[in-house]
Amino acid sequence: LRRIRPLLAGIACLAAAAGASPAPAGPALAPETVEAARALRDRALAGTRATEWVASLIDRAGPRLAGSPGHERAVAWGVETLRALKFANVRAEKVTVPVWKRDSESGEIVSPWPQRLVLTALGDSVATPENGIEGEIFEVHSLEELAGRGAEARGKIVFFDKKMERTADFHGYSTAVDVRGKGASAAARFGAIGVLIRSIGTDSNRLPHTGGLRYDEKLPKIPAAALAAPDADLVERLGKAGPVRVRFRLACGAQAPAESANVVAEVVGRTRPDEIVLLGAHLDSWDLGTGAIDDGAGCGIVIEAARLIAEAPRRPARTIRVVLYANEENGLAGGKGYAAAHASELPKHQAAIEADSGTGAPMALSWLAGPTAETFVGEVVPLLAPVGAGKSSPNGSGGADISTLRASGVPLFAVSQDLTTYFDFHHTANDTLDKIEPKNMDRNVAAVAAFAYAAADAPQSLERIPEARRPQPE
Amino acid sequence: LRRIRPLLAGIACLAAAAGASPAPAGPALAPETVEAARALRDRALAGTRATEWVASLIDRAGPRLAGSPGHERAVAWGVETLRALKFANVRAEKVTVPVWKRDSESGEIVSPWPQRLVLTALGDSVATPENGIEGEIFEVHSLEELAGRGAEARGKIVFFDKKMERTADFHGYSTAVDVRGKGASAAARFGAIGVLIRSIGTDSNRLPHTGGLRYDEKLPKIPAAALAAPDADLVERLGKAGPVRVRFRLACGAQAPAESANVVAEVVGRTRPDEIVLLGAHLDSWDLGTGAIDDGAGCGIVIEAARLIAEAPRRPARTIRVVLYANEENGLAGGKGYAAAHASELPKHQAAIEADSGTGAPMALSWLAGPTAETFVGEVVPLLAPVGAGKSSPNGSGGADISTLRASGVPLFAVSQDLTTYFDFHHTANDTLDKIEPKNMDRNVAAVAAFAYAAADAPQSLERIPEARRPQPE
Repeated sequence: LRRIRPLLAGIACLAAAAGASPAPAGPALAPETVEAARALRDRALAGTRATEWVASLIDRAGPRLAGSPGHERAVAWGVETLRALKFANVRAEKVTVPVWKRDSESGEIVSPWPQRLVLTALGDSVATPENGIEGEIFEVHSLEELAGRGAEARGKIVFFDKKMERTADFHGYSTAVDVRGKGASAAARFGAIGVLIRSIGTDSNRLPHTGGLRYDEKLPKIPAAALAAPDADLVERLGKAGPVRVRFRLACGAQAPAESANVVAEVVGRTRPDEIVLLGAHLDSWDLGTGAIDDGAGCGIVIEAARLIAEAPRRPARTIRVVLYANEENGLAGGKGYAAAHASELPKHQAAIEADSGTGAPMALSWLAGPTAETFVGEVVPLLAPVGAGKSSPNGSGGADISTLRASGVPLFAVSQDLTTYFDFHHTANDTLDKIEPKNMDRNVAAVAAFAYAAADAPQSLERIPEARRPQPE
Repeated sequence: LRRIRPLLAGIACLAAAAGASPAPAGPALAPETVEAARALRDRALAGTRATEWVASLIDRAGPRLAGSPGHERAVAWGVETLRALKFANVRAEKVTVPVWKRDSESGEIVSPWPQRLVLTALGDSVATPENGIEGEIFEVHSLEELAGRGAEARGKIVFFDKKMERTADFHGYSTAVDVRGKGASAAARFGAIGVLIRSIGTDSNRLPHTGGLRYDEKLPKIPAAALAAPDADLVERLGKAGPVRVRFRLACGAQAPAESANVVAEVVGRTRPDEIVLLGAHLDSWDLGTGAIDDGAGCGIVIEAARLIAEAPRRPARTIRVVLYANEENGLAGGKGYAAAHASELPKHQAAIEADSGTGAPMALSWLAGPTAETFVGEVVPLLAPVGAGKSSPNGSGGADISTLRASGVPLFAVSQDLTTYFDFHHTANDTLDKIEPKNMDRNVAAVAAFAYAAADAPQSLERIPEARRPQPE
C-alpha cells in the first residue's frame, strides 16, 4: 500500500491543478505515522498538563485585553513558559494592537420605578457623556424588526431583546450575535441615542456578556451595552405594562494602539523543517473574566499538544509551530500580523488548526481545504473516534485567528467541541478557572496532538483551499 | 368521633397544665375542616398567583434593605396590594429599623500578581479607610483553626476558606455560616486588620454572597467582606505557592435608624376573630439582588395562601393574619417590634408559620409547640402529602421573624423546603425573579393554606411551647 501512495497523490495534485474534479486520493498516512498519532492520543487521554498551563496563565495575567498590563504579563508568561518547556525558536513577534479600555459603567431604570440594571459596555463602544444618556426604551427582537419599524427608534434607546438558543454547536450563537455586532449602527441609522441588548448567552446569571461591536463609519457612533439576562427580563416585563425609561453611563473607549506580540514556539520537523503545521490559540481575553475558557483553554490545549509531540519517540517530518495570538477579541491584529509577517512562508504551511471553543468535549474534526484533503481527513478521523470526534465536517473555517491564512489557501482545521455550556460563561466575569473541565481538556489535547502529528508527518502536501473559497480582495 | 374530641383535648390541656407528660390527644379536626383544607390545597395545586405577587413586589421595589428607598416602596406596595386584594384591617405598623448602607467596594490581589477580586462587604461591616486596607493573607478553614493559630493573625487579613456543603436542608448552611457571623471579631481578637471569607454559598459564580455579621462590642471592629467562589479559589491557589497580599476597600456603614413598618392584613375569623394564626414572611431583602427568593417568595406564598382562604366558601374560626416583616436580614427589628406591639395579644396567637426558604418544593412540616400539638400535626400532615410534605419534624423553630414569639410560647411552624439550589443565589445579585419556580410556589401555597386553615379552624388551642424550650431572659 505504501508504495502506490505517492503516485496517487501525484495524480490528485495534477487533477486539482488542471481544475478537474480530482479523484479521491489513496491512503495518505504511513503505518508508523498512524501508530505515533495513536500513541500520542492515548498518552493524552491518560492525563495531561493542559489545565495546569491554563491556571498558570490566568493566575499571573488575569484579564488580558490586547495591549493591557494583563496582556503584557500574558506575553511574558508565554515566552517564559514555552522556553521552560524546551520548545525551539521561542519568540515574541511584534504586532501593533488596537486598545480599548473599560473604566466604569452603570445603569438603572428611571421609570416606572427606579432600580439598578446590571450591564456592561460592548467592546469598542464609545462612552456616554459623563452623566450618561437617558431615554425611553424601544424594544425590538431582531435587526429585521428594527429595519421595519425604524421610525419608532428616533431619540430612544433601542433594546434588542433577542434570546439565544442553547445548542451544542455554534448555531445558537451565530444566530443571535448579529444584534451585538451590528445593532448600534443599525439603531443609529434611525436616530436612536443608544443601544441595549440582551446578553448573547445562555445563562440566567446577573453577569452580562461583553463582546465586540462594529460601527459603520458612515453613521454616528452611539453607546451600546449588554444587560445581564435577569435585567433584560426586567426591562421586558416592565415594557409590557407601559413605557420604560432607562439611564446608563459608560466610561470606556479607544486608546492609542500599543506594541504587543504574538508568542511563537516550535517543535522542529524531522525531515521537512521548513514546512509548518500551525497550532493556534489566543492569549488575549475580554476584560471582565480571566479568560479561562476563552481562550486560556485553547492555549493550554495547543501548548500541551505540542509538548507531547516534542516528547514523542519520533518527531514528525514537518515543524509544529505554536502561535499564541495577541488580539482575537477586538481586532484580529494578531492573526493579520502573523499572516503579513510570514507571507513568504505561507505556501509552506501544510495546515493550521485553532483551539478557541473552550473546554467542551471534542465532537468532530471540521476542515476547509481542497477536496483531495478528504482522504487525509478520512484517515485521521478514526484516530479521533475514541475521544469523541470520530466524524468530520467539510464546512469548517478553522478559527478567527487562522482565518487570516485563508486568503493564502492554507488548509484550516478545528476540533469542533461541545458548546452546550460554553455560552453560559463566554465573555463574562464568570470565565474563571473553575469552569475548566480537565478531562475534556485531555480529550482535546489528544485530538489536536493526533491530528497535528498526522498532518505534519503526512507524505503529501494537503490540497489548499480552492481559489473560489478564499476571501476576495477588498 | 367528633363528639369525644373536646373531652380528649380537655384532658390533654389539663395534663399539660399539671406538668405531667400528657397522653396523646385524639383526633383534632372536624371533617368539614379537613375537607376545606383539602379543597384549598387542591385549588392551590391547580395554579396560584403567588409568583405574580413576587414579580409585582420586586419590579416596583427592587433591592430593599430595611430603611432604604426600595424598602419604603415595598411597604407602600404591601399596603396597596393587600388592600386591592380586599384583606381586612390592612395597615403599616411602625417599627424603627437599623440602617446599613453599601456605597462601593473593590478589591485586588497586590502580589504575587495584580488581579481584581470580586468581593462584597458583609452586612453591618464597618468601612475601610478610603484607600482600603492592605495586608498579607492568613488562611484558615474554621473558627476553631483560627483559635489554635491566633498568633499568626496579627497585622494580617484573615481569610476564612470554609467550603459550604450542598444539602437539601439547612445543615450545609448552618455548618458553614459561623465564619460569616463571628469571623470578624474572632480575627480582631488576635490583632488581624481585616477579614475575607469564602462566600457562604454553593455556586461557582462570580457573584459574592453578603449576609450579616455580628461584632463583639468589646473588640475592635474590623472590616469584613466575602469573596465570590472563583476569587476564593484564586486566593487559595496562590496561597499554596507563597505569600499573597491583598487590598480591599469598603465604603459602607451604619446610618441613623429609620422609621419603617411591618405590613399587616387579616382574614377575620368566623367564630373566634380575636384568636390569630399568623402567616409571616419578610419584605426587606439584601441590597445586591432583588430579593426574589429571599424573601419575595415567602411574601408571595403567605399573601396567596391568605387570599385563597379568604375566598374559601367557609372562613376558618380564627383570624388569619399576614405579617410582612420589615427587617429580617439585619436586625430582626420587624419581629421584635411585632412581639412588643402585640404583647397583650400573644396568648391568643394559636400558631405562627413563616415562609422564608425560597422557592424549593415542600418537604415536611416542622414545628415547635407543646407535645400534645403532635395530634394536630398528625392530622395535618396527611393533607400535605400530595404536595410532598407528608412528614413532620418536631425540632422546628418557625423562622427568624416569628422566633420573637417563642418567648411567649406561641406554637411555631414552617414548611421545610428543598434547599438544594437555594444557596446558589441566596444573598447575591443573582436573587432575581427568574430563579422563582412557579410550580413549587403553588405547592408551598397549598401547604401553607391547608395548614393555616386547619390551625385556624381546630376546635382546641394548640399546646404552647413548654417553658423549658423558650429562650431565657437575657
